[in-house]
Amino acid sequence: MEQLEHHDAQPPESALRRWPNYEAAAIGLKEYWYPVMPSRKLGRKKMSAARIAGRELCLLRENGKIYVLENQCPHRGIPLSMGSREFPGHVACIYHGWVFDVTDGELKHALPDGPDSPIRGTLCVRTFPAEERLGMIWVWTGDGDPVPLDDDLPEEFLDPAADIFWRQSDSPGNWRYAVENGFDESHGKVLHRNSWWLFFNRMSAWNDTEITRSEDGKWLRRYQRKIVVQADYPGLGQWPRFNFFQRRRKTVQQGSNSHAVDVRLPATLRVRQPGNANWTHYEWYVPIDDSHYRYTQVAVAWVTGFRRLMWRLRYWTYILWVHHYGFNNQDLMVVPLQNPLKAENLFRPDVSVTAWRRFADREHRRPSPETKARNTEAAE
Amino acid sequence: MEQLEHHDAQPPESALRRWPNYEAAAIGLKEYWYPVMPSRKLGRKKMSAARIAGRELCLLRENGKIYVLENQCPHRGIPLSMGSREFPGHVACIYHGWVFDVTDGELKHALPDGPDSPIRGTLCVRTFPAEERLGMIWVWTGDGDPVPLDDDLPEEFLDPAADIFWRQSDSPGNWRYAVENGFDESHGKVLHRNSWWLFFNRMSAWNDTEITRSEDGKWLRRYQRKIVVQADYPGLGQWPRFNFFQRRRKTVQQGSNSHAVDVRLPATLRVRQPGNANWTHYEWYVPIDDSHYRYTQVAVAWVTGFRRLMWRLRYWTYILWVHHYGFNNQDLMVVPLQNPLKAENLFRPDVSVTAWRRFADREHRRPSPETKARNTEAAE
Amino acid sequence: MEQLEHHDAQPPESALRRWPNYEAAAIGLKEYWYPVMPSRKLGRKKMSAARIAGRELCLLRENGKIYVLENQCPHRGIPLSMGSREFPGHVACIYHGWVFDVTDGELKHALPDGPDSPIRGTLCVRTFPAEERLGMIWVWTGDGDPVPLDDDLPEEFLDPAADIFWRQSDSPGNWRYAVENGFDESHGKVLHRNSWWLFFNRMSAWNDTEITRSEDGKWLRRYQRKIVVQADYPGLGQWPRFNFFQRRRKTVQQGSNSHAVDVRLPATLRVRQPGNANWTHYEWYVPIDDSHYRYTQVAVAWVTGFRRLMWRLRYWTYILWVHHYGFNNQDLMVVPLQNPLKAENLFRPDVSVTAWRRFADREHRRPSPETKARNTEAAE
Repeated sequence: MEQLEHHDAQPPESALRRWPNYEAAAIGLKEYWYPVMPSRKLGRKKMSAARIAGRELCLLRENGKIYVLENQCPHRGIPLSMGSREFPGHVACIYHGWVFDVTDGELKHALPDGPDSPIRGTLCVRTFPAEERLGMIWVWTGDGDPVPLDDDLPEEFLDPAADIFWRQSDSPGNWRYAVENGFDESHGKVLHRNSWWLFFNRMSAWNDTEITRSEDGKWLRRYQRKIVVQADYPGLGQWPRFNFFQRRRKTVQQGSNSHAVDVRLPATLRVRQPGNANWTHYEWYVPIDDSHYRYTQVAVAWVTGFRRLMWRLRYWTYILWVHHYGFNNQDLMVVPLQNPLKAENLFRPDVSVTAWRRFADREHRRPSPETKARNTEAAE
Repeated sequence: MEQLEHHDAQPPESALRRWPNYEAAAIGLKEYWYPVMPSRKLGRKKMSAARIAGRELCLLRENGKIYVLENQCPHRGIPLSMGSREFPGHVACIYHGWVFDVTDGELKHALPDGPDSPIRGTLCVRTFPAEERLGMIWVWTGDGDPVPLDDDLPEEFLDPAADIFWRQSDSPGNWRYAVENGFDESHGKVLHRNSWWLFFNRMSAWNDTEITRSEDGKWLRRYQRKIVVQADYPGLGQWPRFNFFQRRRKTVQQGSNSHAVDVRLPATLRVRQPGNANWTHYEWYVPIDDSHYRYTQVAVAWVTGFRRLMWRLRYWTYILWVHHYGFNNQDLMVVPLQNPLKAENLFRPDVSVTAWRRFADREHRRPSPETKARNTEAAE
Repeated sequence: MEQLEHHDAQPPESALRRWPNYEAAAIGLKEYWYPVMPSRKLGRKKMSAARIAGRELCLLRENGKIYVLENQCPHRGIPLSMGSREFPGHVACIYHGWVFDVTDGELKHALPDGPDSPIRGTLCVRTFPAEERLGMIWVWTGDGDPVPLDDDLPEEFLDPAADIFWRQSDSPGNWRYAVENGFDESHGKVLHRNSWWLFFNRMSAWNDTEITRSEDGKWLRRYQRKIVVQADYPGLGQWPRFNFFQRRRKTVQQGSNSHAVDVRLPATLRVRQPGNANWTHYEWYVPIDDSHYRYTQVAVAWVTGFRRLMWRLRYWTYILWVHHYGFNNQDLMVVPLQNPLKAENLFRPDVSVTAWRRFADREHRRPSPETKARNTEAAE
C-alpha cells in the first residue's frame, strides 16, 4: 500500500484550492453508476421521477427490465413520468400523446397527428443505461459509454451470500460535504459522543491516522495506527470522560485494520464494523442537485440459512434504530450547515478530507472527448 | 372566410421566433378591457385589491359606480385598498390620511397637515377606466384611450336573453400557455380522455383542421373539416379504444361548424357546445403577472322564463361539476409545467397555436404614440 | 434648545437624497450598544443565537457574566451556539470539538487533534463586548472601541427607582421605517384612530410641530406648540368626529412639553405619557438584517414599595394589552409595506422624519479609522 498522508505531517493544505475539478462538481461526478431507487419502490404499472446529478429521470419497468428516459417531452416540456403506459414498450406523454420507444427514446407516433405524422422519427428523448441489481435500480448518468456496473459496485456485493438492506432519504446539503463528513474520522469523537451507540461503546480522544490506498486502487482507506483513548488537555482536564460501561481497556492501543473506513468514487463509504459484529455498513451520497443528496444507507452481512434469519432480525430490531437512525441522523444535521469550501480552516485530522478531495479531483472517471462528442450528438 | 393555415401543409414554424411582440407580452397585452372581479365580490363598503397585467389595482363601488385607482399611496407606498371610505367620493389612506378623489385620483387633502396643506392638488394616483356589466367588473389597463367596452365583449353577450355564470380562480402559469392550451385542439384527445365528460362522449384520433377568421375579423376559428374517429397506428394498434357507451357513429365524419372553437384578443376563448346542448362555454385567461393568471370560466345560455330556470338548475347540478371542475382542472395542471417558448418542438396540429401566436403578435391593439405620451404624462 | 425645523416652513426635502449614510445603513448603525435579549431568556447552561445588525451572535452566561462570540466555527462554519459548555470558560464546537476561550475567542484546543495540536492559538473567533443591565443583555456590535454602556442608555434608566418591563418580538420590515414610524406624529391621527386607547382619549386633527434638540444633544424632540383638535376640511366636513367620551376640552390647545416624543441614536424612542399617567414608554428598533428588526417595547415607572406593586399590576392588566398589543401592533402592519426611500413623496408633517434622517445621517457614531483598522486586524 502506498502511504498518502500522515497525521504527524504538516497541516494539510486548506485555502490553497488544489481541487478545481472537485470544486466544479457541485451537482456530482457524472460518469458513474448511481443507486437511484430501491427496486420495491418502482411498480410494474407506474413510472417514477427522480433527479440525479442534475438530470431529470423518468424510470419505468417493462417485462422485468428497467428503462430510464429524460423526463421531459420535447414538444412542450411536460414530464413524461406523468404519462401513460398503455402501449407496451412505449411511453405516451399525458399532454398530446407523443409516443416514445422506451429502448432508444425515439418518437414513434404523435397520436393526434394521425398515423402518418411527418414528425415520426425526427426527435428523440435521451435514454440512460439502467440496471436492476441487488434490490436496487442503478442508472448511468454519464456522457461517456457506460462501464460495466460491476466496476462501480464493491466487489463483496457480488458474493451470493451477501444479504443487503437499502435505505434512502433525500437530505438537504451538498453531496461533497456528506462524503467528507463520512470519511472524516475526527467529528465522530465529538458529534456522535452522545449517540445511543456510545452508551456501551467508547470513542478515543485522538488517533494516529494513516491514509492508504487499497490494492486495486479503488478505495482510499483511513486506518488508526495508534489510538489514544483518553488524554489530558492543559486547561480543560481529562477528555473524554467515560461512564461505567465505557471504563475498560487500556489508554493507548495499537490500531487494527479491522477498524478501517474506506471511501471510493463516486461517493461511496464502507465502514467495517469492529470485532465480531459480522456486518458492514455502506453509504452512498447520491447527488441530486447542488444542495440536496439522496442519502443511501446500506447494511450487508454475508450469511445464509438460519444465520441469515438471525441477521435480519438483528437489522430490524437493532441496527436500523441504533446505527441508521440514532447515529447517522446526527450527520444529516451538520451537512447543510457547512460553508462553501472557501470559508474553512483545516487541521491535522482533516488529512482524510484532503486525501479524498485530491483523490476525487484527480482520479474521477471522465469520457474520452470523442466518446462524449459522439454520445452528445446522438442525443440531439 | 380567409384560410390561414391548413393541416396538410408544411409543419408550422417552431423555433423560428416569429412572434416578438407576443414573446414580449409576458405580463399581458395592456390595451384591453379585462374581467377583473365578479360584481358580487365587491361590496358597497369595502375596497378590493387586484393585480391585473402587472398593475396593482384598488377597486371600489360608490353610488353604484365602479372606480379603480392604482393601489399605492404616493406618500409612503401603503396600499390604498387598506384605507377608509369615510368621506363620500374619496379614499383616505390608512397610514396618514391622504385623501384622494375617486374620479380623477387627485390628492384633495392630507388630513394631519390641516385644511390648508400646500400639498393639496399637487399629486395624483393613476385611475383606470372601469365598468360594471353583465355581473362582472371590467377594467381598462391600457395607456391609450379606452375603446368602448362593447368592442371587447363577444357581441352575443349583449343579447338580453343571455344568462351568464362567471367563475374565477387564480392559477399558476403564464397566461399565454393558458390561451394556447385553450385553442389547441390536439391535447384534448389525450389529456382529457379520462375526464368524466368522456365517459359518455368520445374524442377522435385525429382531424383535418382548418383555421379561419370570423367575418368581423375579431375571432380566429379552428374547424374540423374531417374527423377520423379511430385509426390504426403501426406498432401500437387501434387508437383510441372506446367503451360501450362510446361505441357508435361511423369512423370518418364530415366536420361541422357547430364544433368550432374560437379565440380572440386579448385572451378569450369560445367553445360552442355540440349538438343540442344549447349553451356556450367561454374562458378568459386574465394575466396577473408573468407566472399567474386569473382563470375565468363562463357558461352562457340564451333563455328566458321557465327555460332559464331549467338552465340554471343544469348549470349548478351538471355543468359546474363535469365541465368546469372535472374537465378544465386537467388543463390547470399542465399550464404551469410548460417550458419557455424556446424549448419546444411543434407538430402539425399546432397550427392552431401558431395561428394564434401570429394573430396576437401582429393584430393586438396598441395606442398611438401621441395618445400614450399624453396619458402617461397626465398620470405623472 | 436649538430649533431645527418648523411646521410652517417649506415642505421638507423629499426625493433629494440628502442622507447617504442613512441610506447605506440598511442593516443598522454598528457603533452602538443594542438590547439583544432579556436576561430571563438566557439560561445558565444553554447558549443562544441572535442576529443583530447583520452579525451572527452566540450568547452565553458563565459565572454570572455574559459572553458573546461570533456564531460560526472557523473550521467548517457550524454555529457555535449548537456546541457544548462542558469545559468551564470555554465553548466547544459540536462538530469537531474545537474549543474556544469565551473571553477572547482564542482557539485553545482542537480535541481530536490531541493535546499538542499545532493549530492551538493560531485562530480566533471574534468576540463582542456584552453587559447585563436592567434585565437586558446588551451587545456592542461596532468595529470601534466600545463606549460605556451608560452612554447608550436613557439616563433616567439609571435611577434606582426605575422599574422596567421589556418585551421583544422579531418583526418584518426595515428598522429605519420602524424608527420613522415611531417618531412620526401624523400617522397616529389616522392609523391609530380606531385603537382601543382612543375610545376614551382623542387625537387632534393637526398640530403646529416644532423639532428641537435636548440639552445634552442626544435626543431629537417633537413638540406640539399648538394643537388643533378638530378642523373643517372643504369638501369633506369636520374631522375628526368624536364619540361621547371624546367630546370635551376646547378645540385649539396650547401644546405642552409633557406631550413631547423623543428619538435618539441608534434607534430609540421615548414617549412620555400625558397627564398623571406617571410612566414612560420606550421603543428600540434593533436591526436584525435589512428586512427584519427586533421590536423592543419598554414600559418604565419610577416607583418603590407599594406603589411599585400597583404599577406592576397596572402593567399586566392594562398597559400590556391596550398599549403594547392594541396600539403598537397597528404599526407592525405598515412598516413592512413601505417602499424604499426612492418612491416616497413627503409632506409638511414629515419634518419629524426628515429631521431624524438628517440627525442619523450626520451624527451617528463612527470609529476612528485607526481604531477600526486595529480592531479588524485583531479579529483576523
